[in-house]
Formats: sequence, structure tokens, C-alpha cells
Amino acid sequence: MRAADLVISAAGAAGIRYCFANPGTTEMPLVEAFDRVTGVRPVLCTFEGVATGAADGYARMAGVPGLTLLHLGPGYANGIANLHNARRARSPIVNLIGEHATDHRAFDPPLAMPIEALAASLPGHVRTVMAAGDAGGAFAECYHEATRGLISHLVFAHDLQALEVEGGVPFLTRARPEKVPTDLVERVARDLRGARSPAIILGGEALSGEGLRLSGQVAEACGATLFHETFTARMERGAGIPSPVRLPYFPESARDALKGHDVVVLVGVPSPVGFFGYPGDSGSLIEEGRERRLCRPEEDVMEVLTHLSEALGVSSSSPGFSGPDYQVPELPVGALTTESLGQAFAALQPEEAIVVDEGITSGFFYQPLAARVAPHTTLTITGGAIGCGIPLAIGAALACPDRPVLGLQADGSALFTVQGLWTQARENLNIKTVICSNRKYDILKLEVARSGNTEPGPMTQSLTDLCRPDIGWVDIARGFGIPALSAGTSEDFSRALQAALAEPGPFLVEAVLG
Amino acid sequence: MRAADLVISAAGAAGIRYCFANPGTTEMPLVEAFDRVTGVRPVLCTFEGVATGAADGYARMAGVPGLTLLHLGPGYANGIANLHNARRARSPIVNLIGEHATDHRAFDPPLAMPIEALAASLPGHVRTVMAAGDAGGAFAECYHEATRGLISHLVFAHDLQALEVEGGVPFLTRARPEKVPTDLVERVARDLRGARSPAIILGGEALSGEGLRLSGQVAEACGATLFHETFTARMERGAGIPSPVRLPYFPESARDALKGHDVVVLVGVPSPVGFFGYPGDSGSLIEEGRERRLCRPEEDVMEVLTHLSEALGVSSSSPGFSGPDYQVPELPVGALTTESLGQAFAALQPEEAIVVDEGITSGFFYQPLAARVAPHTTLTITGGAIGCGIPLAIGAALACPDRPVLGLQADGSALFTVQGLWTQARENLNIKTVICSNRKYDILKLEVARSGNTEPGPMTQSLTDLCRPDIGWVDIARGFGIPALSAGTSEDFSRALQAALAEPGPFLVEAVLG
Repeated sequence: MRAADLVISAAGAAGIRYCFANPGTTEMPLVEAFDRVTGVRPVLCTFEGVATGAADGYARMAGVPGLTLLHLGPGYANGIANLHNARRARSPIVNLIGEHATDHRAFDPPLAMPIEALAASLPGHVRTVMAAGDAGGAFAECYHEATRGLISHLVFAHDLQALEVEGGVPFLTRARPEKVPTDLVERVARDLRGARSPAIILGGEALSGEGLRLSGQVAEACGATLFHETFTARMERGAGIPSPVRLPYFPESARDALKGHDVVVLVGVPSPVGFFGYPGDSGSLIEEGRERRLCRPEEDVMEVLTHLSEALGVSSSSPGFSGPDYQVPELPVGALTTESLGQAFAALQPEEAIVVDEGITSGFFYQPLAARVAPHTTLTITGGAIGCGIPLAIGAALACPDRPVLGLQADGSALFTVQGLWTQARENLNIKTVICSNRKYDILKLEVARSGNTEPGPMTQSLTDLCRPDIGWVDIARGFGIPALSAGTSEDFSRALQAALAEPGPFLVEAVLG
Repeated sequence: MRAADLVISAAGAAGIRYCFANPGTTEMPLVEAFDRVTGVRPVLCTFEGVATGAADGYARMAGVPGLTLLHLGPGYANGIANLHNARRARSPIVNLIGEHATDHRAFDPPLAMPIEALAASLPGHVRTVMAAGDAGGAFAECYHEATRGLISHLVFAHDLQALEVEGGVPFLTRARPEKVPTDLVERVARDLRGARSPAIILGGEALSGEGLRLSGQVAEACGATLFHETFTARMERGAGIPSPVRLPYFPESARDALKGHDVVVLVGVPSPVGFFGYPGDSGSLIEEGRERRLCRPEEDVMEVLTHLSEALGVSSSSPGFSGPDYQVPELPVGALTTESLGQAFAALQPEEAIVVDEGITSGFFYQPLAARVAPHTTLTITGGAIGCGIPLAIGAALACPDRPVLGLQADGSALFTVQGLWTQARENLNIKTVICSNRKYDILKLEVARSGNTEPGPMTQSLTDLCRPDIGWVDIARGFGIPALSAGTSEDFSRALQAALAEPGPFLVEAVLG
């Protein structure tokens, strides 16, 4: 078979069902491979940032790596921002990147860029196929590195893709998480028991259903307050599920939240730091001497939580901390605000929904309410590179075709990957996107005010406003083939979201915030 | 003044009037600088690829560097594809990139990326401000490097931007083009005179009005055929202007066009190579021994052309090759095809228009016709990274507010930076965009056929079609605040383009190609 066919077959053997693609001339043998072998279906994305964000959403929900097919250096570059988010989410991703034919690259044709150097600047793994016979092994290597939670890159020259190779699909191995020493777990258990007011910050696998169940038991056994990292890759939420407190976004609030705790244990998270540094407010959020690094994200979180609960004497039948009671908010009336939007969204979201929360400031009121509604899964913007929401929804919907996907989507962020709406339409995905149309980069306005600039000048305003003209989201959605409604009051919004949920396939609701 | 104010003042002193910006928290002092100093106005772009493409368009038309303001590594990464085009155009660009506060970066906050490594992978210049007092000198260095035709990057930490610094605007110097040895010019003149059938391939400055006038005289003096590089950064065209033959896109056609010429002189262009390599068809397009590299793009093209015309005995009053006669095509009737679209576009484009041609396959019939209409300027996609058209038009319109800008825009490419339509609306720019809506990546379909795959399977088709659903460009334009019309016949198209040209401000015409 051709080297390209072998690579796509190997992806299929790894359980990968979709490839998010925007190919060009140098990827044509890989494109044709989707017709020559079965198992992996390509999904056309009309911009690479959509492809990489969709691969991230797929990886977060499917439990197998997300796969992309990208065109040379510039096409790959377009995908970097959402790969940055995927890296911070520790999503396994394999990027197939076409390269110029081997005897052509040295002539520096117009599209040539140093792909490997570009890829290496995103910490992860880069492998160039040096000979066609090498392609299967190169894919296996990239797959293995991806399952370590790394962004993997397979750079594959045009001519090599089309060559016939011997042999079959390579042997594929998944990486295993690194082990945490037992004595560290026991030491931390003692610290937790001896603490006046312990806290545990959870991230990664600790926010899975089983991770939260174990964490809840641990918290109850030692009286710890549970926090979760501010931006989570994937978290189970809802009534009955232990609901950690979100670590606040602004560093002064996060320090406030943590300062009463004499022992702060990290499980599946790096040491938390401010999203940005400010004069006199940089670095770690935890006071010196209080932090206990139990388990890094790349370590075996589930095993550590099991050991920890054993060390704390939790019986396996202990019910543990049961999480909040079921309480669906009332449907709000009157002006549509961030608060009433959050209320209506939480009230109406269906059971087993996957909520992609890139609401930025507009998600503020929604998050605590969602802890008490029907169980669901939340995906958020892990790396701060805006424009992940629309693509994440694509990947999640393909990974979980039986679950409704809801996007709580900031308008400014949505514009970065707005083309993704077309892929939602083409694939007829069950995604309902709510655009929180506040017509500004609200987080930047907050930052300007925080810096002491209480009367921003017209230039600063022009760079933080998204008006003049207002964006017509209903028109844009329709242009991409998605039905849409606009809502300017709370009642309108609830009706529009109900109408959206009653339809199969994608829908967009523009929530015009007052 | 603050270090940020000093940098923006220096940009103003360099004659830069606009900064194409999508800032975040780490750029706020630079944002505020636009209110604190005068001379440079920020232009909000809702995606960084729009900002970098607009900076390229501005640089190509304004004769001063394009300036961007970008947010950290991921924001910069979003701008790389259009910076790649700018690099191939040799457009001077200075990118101001905010970085985390100096004492915060080491904590690896979520948005941290190795910006310098990322920027270094795009060949150009990278300078990090190490202390606030260093900012003015760092800008002067980046400005100088930009005027060498390089992409320059000024990485500027958040905290340093806000510090007060002594001293005024730094001394700014423009780079001068490198000199070509006189004896090389004389040797090439002898070769041209002695050749049976000489050819000259022109690029860069040789395609300016004066460059073409001199090239026309040279061609007439030695009987040379003039070619221009396939994708030009900026070229003057129209009746009375010497009109070089476009070097064909596909390598076999380019070799055919050049093979009858025993001497091929390069002026302002690198040695031409195929856009892509194919089995048995890689590398240079010129037969061995025939190429004469007279002048590289970074060398003094205008001086070389002057010397060359003197060496060939051209009198300064020689009229030279006068270019084609004025001949406006008839307005076409009937079905709207690539051919009739090109005809109508050429027939209706106003005098002194700036035509941004990212038509890809849809521009094929337009290009030869445009050589005979009223004088105008053409900008094209120089690096092959699709998605430059909408942004280039923004920069060109701001650089030349008295000239109409027309976009001949492929639909697939337009989707990459579709958010740029909003900036066209906000700035109320005189840009008329024609979307050539053929609903496919036609160039890829051609490549599939060329590779011998005459019956592409359904997966290959799904990755090269842009239908199911069709994109509604009129809706999308309106959503971004731009009036729009759709046309499905030649007559409709002419009427729509006439209506667009009669309006002030931006307009979009969707040309649905049969």
C-alpha cells in the first residue's frame, strides 16, 4: 500500500474515527488515502484553527488522539493558537503536516517555511518522515507521544506519501502516566490530616466523574475544601457530583480564596499562577511553605487519588461528599443581562449536555448555577488563546453523537474561528451556540479599569469595543447554513434557546446583552 | 514619557499612520499610548491574520512599514500566515508583540509560549526589549531591519511598556538596497545583445511604473521578451504601461514559456521555481546555463535597470516599449463563468483602482484583459498562504484613501480571514469585494486530475468541494455590516458591480459561478 494509506490505516487502528482537515496540493496522497482505506473519515474545516480546535474537542471527549491534516508551514501556523489550548489541556493530538517534495524543498518555493522549527516552538513532539518505509513507525511514535498528552507533529513530504511500502499497520502503544511515589502520597495524607484548614486543587483526570467521586471522599475524610483549576479541559458537573470551587481568575481574588488554607495540595495541576502578572502581583498564588505538589498533570492522578483515600482511611463504600442538590434556576424575566443569560442557560440545558464554555466574562454567573443542574460535561478555554469554542464543539459533537452540545460563546472570541459554523452545518452536528453579544472585549475593559485608567480615551475605547457596526450574528449564521434567532430580553432568549433545542442539527442564538 | 508612548511616537516619526491591532491584557500600555501621543491611529482587527495582512497591504502601497500590535505567542501565531506572504512580498513590517511581565514569565502562565522561537521560525528579525530604556533603540533597530524588506518583531513585556523613560524619539534610518557590481551589469548587457532570443524576468521594484518604463526600453533595445514573476507584490498595469508576460503557474507551462529563450535575465526576482514539485518536475524552471542573475530582490533594482539601459545604449528620451493599447472589454451576457466574470471586472474597474487579486483559478481570464484597461495597481498573493485578499484591501485602502480598491476574491481563500469584512465596515473603506463563488477548492481539483486521479472518490470530493451547504456571502457580508448583492448571470454581475462602485464605502458582490 501507499505510505499515505498506511498512516491513515494506522490512525484507524488507533481508534481515531475523524481527521480534521484543510489540505492543499502537498497533502493530496493523504487526501486520497481516505478513499483507499476505511475507518477514518475526513472532516473539512475551512480554516486550520477550526481543525486544530476540533481535534482538541474530539480528544477531550473521545479518549483517543485528535487527528488533523494541515498544509505546509502557513497552514500549520494557522492552527497553532488552538494547539496551544490543546497543549494546556494536555489533549493528545497528532498533526499530519504535508511538506514539499523532498527534491523541491531546497529550491525555497513560495510556500516553503521551516515547519519543524515552527512546530518545535510549541512544546511537544516533532517527527519528519525521512523515507516512505519510515512512515508507519513515525506515526506510531507520534501516536505514543500524543498519548503522553503532547502535541505531536508528523511532517510528511508530498512525494513520500505516494510511494508504495511493504508491511502492515505498525504496532501501536499508548503511554502510561508516570507513577507518584507511595511515600509522597502518605506524607501528603499526614499533612492533610494535620492541617487546620486544608485545601486541594484539582485538575485534569481528577475532574472526571470517578476523579471527583474519589476527591469528594478524600475531602470529606480530611475536611478539605476542594478547588478546581480556573480553566478546565474537561469537568463533570451537576447535582450529586462533588463540585469544587473554581479558583478565581484575577490573582488577588485567587490569593484571597486560598489564604485561609494552611496546606494546599495539588492533584493533576501545575502550581497555580495568575493568568497575567501585575506590578507587585506576579508568580505563585499559594503562600510560601503551604503548597504540596502531590501529582503533576502527567502523573497517574487516578492511582494517586485511590492511594490517598486509602491512606486517609476512606472505606470503599463511603458515600463521600455527595455534591450539591438538584436545583434548576427559574426562567428569568426582563432585561437580558449576563446574569439572566446564565440563569436561563443553566435552566434549559438538557441532561448529559456537553457545555463548551468560552463565555469569558459572560460565563461568570452561569458557572455556579450549573453545579446544581442535571449532570453534564464542561470544556473550557485552557490556554487563553481565544477562538476555541466553535471548534471544540465540533470535535465534541463528533465524539459523542448522542449527546447535545451547547456553546456558551463570547462574541469577540467567536470571531476568531467563525468559519467553524460552516463545518457544524455541513456535518449537521447537534450543536446549539449561544453568542453572548455584549459587543465589547469586556475582559480588556476590566483590565483597563484595574490598571487605574478610569476614563479611557477614544483610541483605547475603539480597541476594546466591538460595535460600530454591531455584528449581525443571525445573518452570519445563516450565511454559513445554520438557522438562527436573536434575543434581546430574557423571555426572548429562553424561547429562542428552547426553539434551538427542539431542532435537530446546529442552531445559533444571538443573545444581545444590555 | 512611558516606554510604550516612545515606541508609538517613533512609529509616527517614521511616517507610519496606522497600527493594525488585536491587543490583549499584556499590550494595554501600548493601547493607551495611542491616546497619549498623536500620529498613529490604531485599527481594530478581530483576528490577527487580518492585522498582519492589512499591514502588508499598507506597506505595499504606503512606502513605509506596516505596523501591527499582537497579543503574546498565540496572537502572533494567528498572524504568521499573512506575515509569510508579506515576507515573500518583501514588505517591511514591524510587529509589536506584548509579552508577560518580566517577573511573571518564568512561572509559565497559561498563555505563555516561546515568542522569540516562534518569530525566529519566520526568517526575519526578532528583538526583545530587555529594559524600558531600551525600547526606543529597539524600535529603531526593528524599523531599520523592516526597511530591508524583512519581517521585524519587537517583543515588549507588559511591565516595561508602562515604565517612564528619559530621552526622545530615536534616530531612525532606512536601509539602502545593496549595490550590484557595474561589471555584472555590463556582462549581462553583452549577453542580452548577443542572445538569439533573450528574456528578462521582472519582480519587485521592476514592476513599479518607472521600473516597467525602464524595462520596456531595455526590452526594446535588445529584443527581449519581458516576463513577470507569477505572484507579484505590487505591479502597475494598464494601457500604455509595458506589460510583461506572466510566468505560468504550473511548472510545465512555465518551462514551455521559457524554453525558446537562450538567455534569461533575472531582475528583482529569485530564480523561479515551480510552486510545487512533482515527480520528475522539481527545481529551477530555467534550463542550465541560460540563467543570468543580474539583481536579487534585495538589491538596487532601479539603479540596475538604469545602468542596463545605458549599457544597451538606450537614449533617455527613447519612448521605449509603449505597452498595449487601451481596450476595454465588452460587457458580457449570459451565464456567469470565470471568463465572463473576468471580462466584466476588467470592463468596469475604475481608473487608478488598486486591484487585490486573490482570485486563484477565478482570476485566470481577468489578468490578460486587465493589461489593456485604464492604469491601475495590482497586489497578489505572494507566498501562497491563502486568506490575504480581504486584509490586503484594508491596508491598501487606508494607504490610498483617494483610490478605489477592488478585490477579486476566491471564496475558499476569503473564508480564512472573513472577519476582515468587519474592519472594512468599521473603517468605512472604499473596498468592493467580488467573491468568486465557485463553491470548491478548484486548484485542488486541478491537482487531483493532474496526478492522474480522474475519478476522485467521495472523501476526496468532500475535501475539495465547498458546498453542502453553499455559503451565503450576502448574509455574511451583511452580518459584518457591509451591503451586498448576489449575481448569477453576467448581466446581473455587471449591474451589481456597477451598483457597488456607485456607493461610497465597502460593498460585496457574490458572483455565483456556473
